[in-house]
Parts: sequence; C-alpha cells; structure tokens
Amino acid sequence: MTSYDYDLFVIGGGSGGVRSGRLAASMGKKVAIAEEYRFGGTCVIRGCVPKKLFVYASQYHEHFEDAAGYGWTVGESSFNWQALIEAKDKEIARLEGLYRRGLENAGAEILDTRAELVDAHTIRLVKTDTTVTAERIVIATGGTANPHASLPGSEFCITSNEAFHLEELPKSILIAGGGYIAVEFANIFHGLGVDTTLIYRGKEILSRFDRDMREGLHKAMVDKGIRIMLTDVIEEVTKSPAGGLTARTKAGASVSADQIMLALGRDPNTAGLGLENAGVEIDARGAIVVDAYSRTNVPHIFALGDVTDRVQLTPVAIHEAMCFIETEFKNNPTAPDHDLIATAVFSQPEIGTVGLSEEEACKRFDEIEVYRAEFRPMKATLSGRAEKMIMKLVVNAADRKVVGAHILGHDAGEMAQLLGISLKAGVTKDDFDRTMAVHPTAAEELVTMYKPSYRVKGGERING
Amino acid sequence: MTSYDYDLFVIGGGSGGVRSGRLAASMGKKVAIAEEYRFGGTCVIRGCVPKKLFVYASQYHEHFEDAAGYGWTVGESSFNWQALIEAKDKEIARLEGLYRRGLENAGAEILDTRAELVDAHTIRLVKTDTTVTAERIVIATGGTANPHASLPGSEFCITSNEAFHLEELPKSILIAGGGYIAVEFANIFHGLGVDTTLIYRGKEILSRFDRDMREGLHKAMVDKGIRIMLTDVIEEVTKSPAGGLTARTKAGASVSADQIMLALGRDPNTAGLGLENAGVEIDARGAIVVDAYSRTNVPHIFALGDVTDRVQLTPVAIHEAMCFIETEFKNNPTAPDHDLIATAVFSQPEIGTVGLSEEEACKRFDEIEVYRAEFRPMKATLSGRAEKMIMKLVVNAADRKVVGAHILGHDAGEMAQLLGISLKAGVTKDDFDRTMAVHPTAAEELVTMYKPSYRVKGGERING
Repeated sequence: MTSYDYDLFVIGGGSGGVRSGRLAASMGKKVAIAEEYRFGGTCVIRGCVPKKLFVYASQYHEHFEDAAGYGWTVGESSFNWQALIEAKDKEIARLEGLYRRGLENAGAEILDTRAELVDAHTIRLVKTDTTVTAERIVIATGGTANPHASLPGSEFCITSNEAFHLEELPKSILIAGGGYIAVEFANIFHGLGVDTTLIYRGKEILSRFDRDMREGLHKAMVDKGIRIMLTDVIEEVTKSPAGGLTARTKAGASVSADQIMLALGRDPNTAGLGLENAGVEIDARGAIVVDAYSRTNVPHIFALGDVTDRVQLTPVAIHEAMCFIETEFKNNPTAPDHDLIATAVFSQPEIGTVGLSEEEACKRFDEIEVYRAEFRPMKATLSGRAEKMIMKLVVNAADRKVVGAHILGHDAGEMAQLLGISLKAGVTKDDFDRTMAVHPTAAEELVTMYKPSYRVKGGERING
Repeated sequence: MTSYDYDLFVIGGGSGGVRSGRLAASMGKKVAIAEEYRFGGTCVIRGCVPKKLFVYASQYHEHFEDAAGYGWTVGESSFNWQALIEAKDKEIARLEGLYRRGLENAGAEILDTRAELVDAHTIRLVKTDTTVTAERIVIATGGTANPHASLPGSEFCITSNEAFHLEELPKSILIAGGGYIAVEFANIFHGLGVDTTLIYRGKEILSRFDRDMREGLHKAMVDKGIRIMLTDVIEEVTKSPAGGLTARTKAGASVSADQIMLALGRDPNTAGLGLENAGVEIDARGAIVVDAYSRTNVPHIFALGDVTDRVQLTPVAIHEAMCFIETEFKNNPTAPDHDLIATAVFSQPEIGTVGLSEEEACKRFDEIEVYRAEFRPMKATLSGRAEKMIMKLVVNAADRKVVGAHILGHDAGEMAQLLGISLKAGVTKDDFDRTMAVHPTAAEELVTMYKPSYRVKGGERING
C-alpha cells in the first residue's frame, strides 16, 4: 500500500530522535534516522552527561579539603585539564556507540548525513545528494547555544559547546547569563581553580526558581569566591594582542578574563532544514509549532524535543518520543504530560525542585503554607565547611496538597526525582507527616517539619 | 489536686525520653528527666551520629582514588584515628549540649543521676539517694549491645560502644554478627585501612532485607576486600601474651585479629530499674511490654523506644514520644504507626529500603511484579570503580501498589526517605511511570522501569 521508502524518517540523532526511531524500528517499521554530527544529541555529546562529569571533577578539591576534619592528611594535589577532557571524550564515544548500537539492533537505518526537507514527504540526504521518501517524518534537531552575534567581539567568546573542548583550562573566566547552564559552568570552573565571574542582566540568578533557592545558591557561590554581577550585561568584548579578553559592561565595568563564555539561551535548530518546502510552520523564535501530540501543522510531520521549545530537557524529549509512538504506531493517542516536571541544577550546592515556587503558588492559591528548614548538613560539622542546606515545601492550605518542593544542597537532584513521584501522585502534607524519618539523613528534614514556618494569605505573610 | 512532685518523670535521656520530656515541659507540665550517663542516648552518644561521622571518614580514601580518573593527581594521604575520635567527641559534646539546652529552655528539670522505681509513683534518685513522686512516668532507658558473656574470652572483645573510643585503630578486626551494626562497622574499618573479617551464623548477611540487597552488598564488600564467613560462629576467643586475639570458630577456623567486635544484637536496659517494685511487666527478652499507646500494664507508666523492643530506631522512639504526648497530655489518643518504616544501612554501598522485600511480598500477595535495574553509576565511569547500583520496586499486581522499594548504592538512605513518603501515601506503579525523569541522576532509574523484569505468581517466577 505504501509507496514510500520509509515508514518513518527521523531527522536528528538526539534523545527524542533516537528514542522514536528505535521504538518504531523495534515494532518492525522501516525507519531511517539521519544525524549530521554525532548520535546522542546535546545531552550526551555536549550537555547533561559531559557537564555532570565536569561537576564530579570539580568537586574533588572540596573532598581533599574536607578530609582534614575527619583525620586525614592529604598531600599536594594537582589537576590536569587535558586528562579530564580525554577521559570525558572516551566516555562520550562509548555512549554514542551505545546509541548507535541500540538503533542498529532495533533495525533502524543509520544515515550519517545532514537531512533537509524537499517537500512534505521527501528528504534530501546532503552528503550523497540523494532523496528518499517517508510516510511519516519526525524532526528532532534540537537547539544550539545562542551565539549573540550582535555583541561586538562575540567572535572572541565561547559557548558551552567550546567549554567542553578547551585546549587549556583558563586561569580566569567571565560567564554571561543567569540560567542553569551559566550557573553550572561557573561552579565547575571555580571548582577546578579558575577565577570565575558571572554577569547577568536580571536582579537575581535563575529566574523562575523559588526565591530561597536563587538567593541561597547566590550566597553560597559568593561565599566560596565566585563574583556575581547582577543587572548588568556585556556591551563589547575586545582582545588584546597578547590574547587576553576584556569585557566592557553596560554599567561601565571592565572585566578581563582568559575566556568569556556566553550562556544566553538556546535557539531551535530549524535554519536550512527546508521546513518551508514542506509547509511546516515555525514561530517567531524559530521553533517548530506543534499541537498537544507533537504534531506540526502538516499532519504526518511531527517535532520532538528542543526544536519545539516546549521544555528543553532530555527526559521530556524522550517522553514526547514515547507518546509519539503510542499515538502514531499503537493507535493510542497520547499527549505528552508537561505538568510537574522535577528538575535539577547541578550547581554546587545543587538545586532540586518540583512544582510551584512560593511566588507562583501565592498567585495561584488563596492561602499557602510554607515549611522551610535551613541547616548545616552533618558532613559539614567535622569538615568545618560553611554550607547550609535549604529545604522547602509549599502547601495549598485549602486541600493540604504539596504543590512545590525545593532543595538546595548535596543530592538535591536525586531528592527532586523522588519528590516528583509524590507530587505527581498528588500527596498531601499529611502524607509527609505520617512518614517516619530515616536517620541520619538530610531528607528527613522534609518529613519532620510539622508546623508551617509561615503562611501567605492574599499576598500577605502571616506567621505560622 | 495532684499530690505528686512532678506531672511527668522521664527515666532516660535518649531520643524518646528527651522528646517526651521537652514537649510536656513546653506545655507547662512539671517535668523531670533523669539520665545516668549522657543526654542524647544511643543515637547521639554511641550510635547513629558518631557512626555516620565514621562513615564519612572512611569514604575519603575512595575519593582520593576516584579523583585520578577525573584528571587529579593526589599526594600521599595518611589517616589519624585519634584526630577523628577527638573531632567526633567534640561534635557529640556539642549535640549533647543542644539536647540539654532544649530541655532547660522548655522548663524541664534535668537530673544527672540514675533513677529507679521504688513503687508505681515513686522514683529513687541514686546519686542523692532521695525519692521523688510523679503522676506519670516514662521509661525510655534504651538498650545495650549484647556482651555475649557466655562466650569464652568475650572479656577480650569489644562492642560498638568501645569501637567509638578505641585508643588505636587496629590493624585487623574480626566482627561477629550479620545485622546492620556489624555490616556498617565492617565497611567503616575497611575504609580506614583495617584488615576486616565478618563472621555471621546465617546464610547471608542482613536477614529480612530483600535478597538482592543482601547479595549485592555481600558481593560489593567481598570485591573490595572484606572477608565474610557465613554459617559460622566464634566459639572461643583467646589472647596471646603479646596482646593479639585469636577466635576459634565452630567450623574449625582460626582467625587472628587485633580486635574482635561483637555485634550480636541489643538488649533492653531494664535490669535494676525497679520495674518489679512498680509492677511493670517485662517479656522473656527483658523488654517492657506495652500496648498500642506505649502504655505498660501500669496505666500511668509508659515506655518508649528501644526498651520496648518494638522497632529499634531513633525516629520511631521520637514518634512514640510524640504520640504519648498526644495521648496523655492533649486528649488525643494516638497509637504510634509502625507500618512502612523506611530505613537505611550506612554500609558502603549504602542500602535504603521501605516496605516489603520481594520474598515477603510473594507470601503476602497472589501475584507481584518486580522491576529491577542494576547499573554502573555515572561517577564510576571515569573513576573506573567497579561498583553497581541496584534498584528494585516490588508491586502488587492486583492493584498496582508499590509495596516495596529497595536501593543499593550511593545516597540510598536519602532516596529511601523520599520513597517512604510515596509508599506511605499508597502510590501505584502508574504514579511512578507518570513521573518525568530528572537527568542525569541515579534515581531516575526508579521512574523509567516501564516493564517488569519478572513476575511471581503463586511462588513461581514468570518472565516479565
């Protein structure tokens, strides 16, 4: 019946593309997947995975310092950036291999080429300059760090892409941005011994996160020696003959650094894809417009993951891919569920969060209860490290549902994952109260905050 | 109306005693609390807290080793046991001070003396040889490590009590027991460089835990160099003139070690308390018999915590204390809830668990689904450490409720705490499935196991 070369053609070998291609192929569908660079996408190649490996690397100097309080004497330590890069690249190559093998084993055809749309069913493979046809098409081309080309001197700057491959660890770095990428890299570089400055246009880092998390992390970063400049932006970057960079800011400051990294948001990868040939609609930001089922305005063309600019997270792209498979190949229309997504910022200290910030909850509900604990984690008692954990629950007073949970401190990401289950299931503060503590843990604070720290009713704070 | 010296007299300054005394005093009751040793109880003085500090200390050598894979070169390290003991003792003294101040601030009278019952309302203060009377009495005297006095040579052995105060770190240690205390100390001593052997009468360590946890931890311990002898017990301990100890086992083995630690269970502290004078009933093990409200057979005498041998955990004693206050002083009869208590074993790797083991669930339900993942944590990819995490969910097939959750690996205790909330709230596997992953975390495995690894129906394993 079908007159197409493929049942499904996937453009983009990242999390969403690979999952949809692999699942469809394992169902016996004829599937091809095209990727112009490396399989694994942003997450594996230059995002979540190498970032977290860098985070681990950047934590060791604290372990060495903390050990003294526990009776250890540790000899001089030194760090070799090239060794880290090499080890990281080897691991990334291994993971990329796993992605490719997963596709191959499922029976998908792997095409190592850029692919562009010629019309609504025809795809041009750029490397061979041939065309193929497909009944259904998935576009999962992801996004790219915004290069901020309008900034004079932006050509001297790097983005996170290059940060993963610097030939040398800089002695100093200026990072522009206040989102999680900027914040994570500031902590990584600082942890590796780099003199680090963050500059952000907003009044506080990490907009949209709970204020306690934003202020708590800001304070922790400044306390350990990261400079944070707020309500300011870089207006020009110049390079000295010796190679050093200098940023001139709007507020009139001048910051010199070996490297300047721009972490100013990410743009959907839609340029040159031939979307206009297929009639696929994009929005003003260049993102592909999709309906609740990830379907574009062209009924047999779908888009998944960062290219749609819904929620730019790996698990979300994977979830969208699985929903697409249900919808299109299992006769079970399933809309991706973007509600109550737990997330982590792998800063140091980490942030883990799910649900509404206190500020959002105040707008949404007539009265909320806030349970808040700030304490020194047990490990810090002997290490002497001045660090605080913050844990916070936001509860809708009307029905006692926990609508937000926020943690700043070690393992906050792991905790957010599990709190995500509870919040998704709609548990109440009474369920938290009925749970026995596990001692000694940090998380036990979350089940032993019996009385609200305060309430907020109609925008006014009332003491608990 | 009352003709008693106190509204409440508490015997024992541990977790249960302090909490009940403090809460009653803060309500304006006339309260005295007697403690013969130090405030804080087993947990603070020679249990959970110093144990976890030792765990932290014993983990650093792994950090030093792991750092190499991340580009670090670390100089020679050495460990000073006396420095750890000193730092630990200082922290314990600080915590004890907090306990005392909490009582004082609430208005409780602190009596640094042993206290014994003279009759059902009269208590003798041993230090001053005076008597006082109280309307209500709480007995919260805890438990003690079983000294195994019937073992020839037991006088040469230590228990966990002494392990916290050894003058020197032994070069080698033999630990008898297969419970969590034996297992935790085996990992602590091994981590500090001590040649460590565990001997246990059972077929596998940690009876009653899920088999995957027991076998997984056993394997991890053996892989790192801890010797484990099963189905064997020490029959005699002898001391050589030079001071070395030798244990002869039932199976005929002979094990020499600098120290031999007995971790063979804990006995309730009821001897010499004068319980018979007050007519308070104890059971064959010496534990005080209580009803669902922690009330002894004498209506105005209550017993809380380890002395009742219900569940020997700090948070349980505290919970029992809070229930006692509700019941007796707030006119709100509240029975402690001992169902679905999450716990952790601070072994290395850690175990975190809540609910039923697979084995128990099989007995309880007609059909269960088991979801099981075993994987190398991300940090181990670059460190090269051969370690596996195991995560396991046990689900009642009939109603999809998650009835057990078990984790072996880093941060398992923190995870168990939060899984405890979900299980207590009665969430289903579908709630887990609907939860978005947080990437990259270890805990995300718990929400991405979509298909059962296997099912067990009527005792027979069926493939998933």
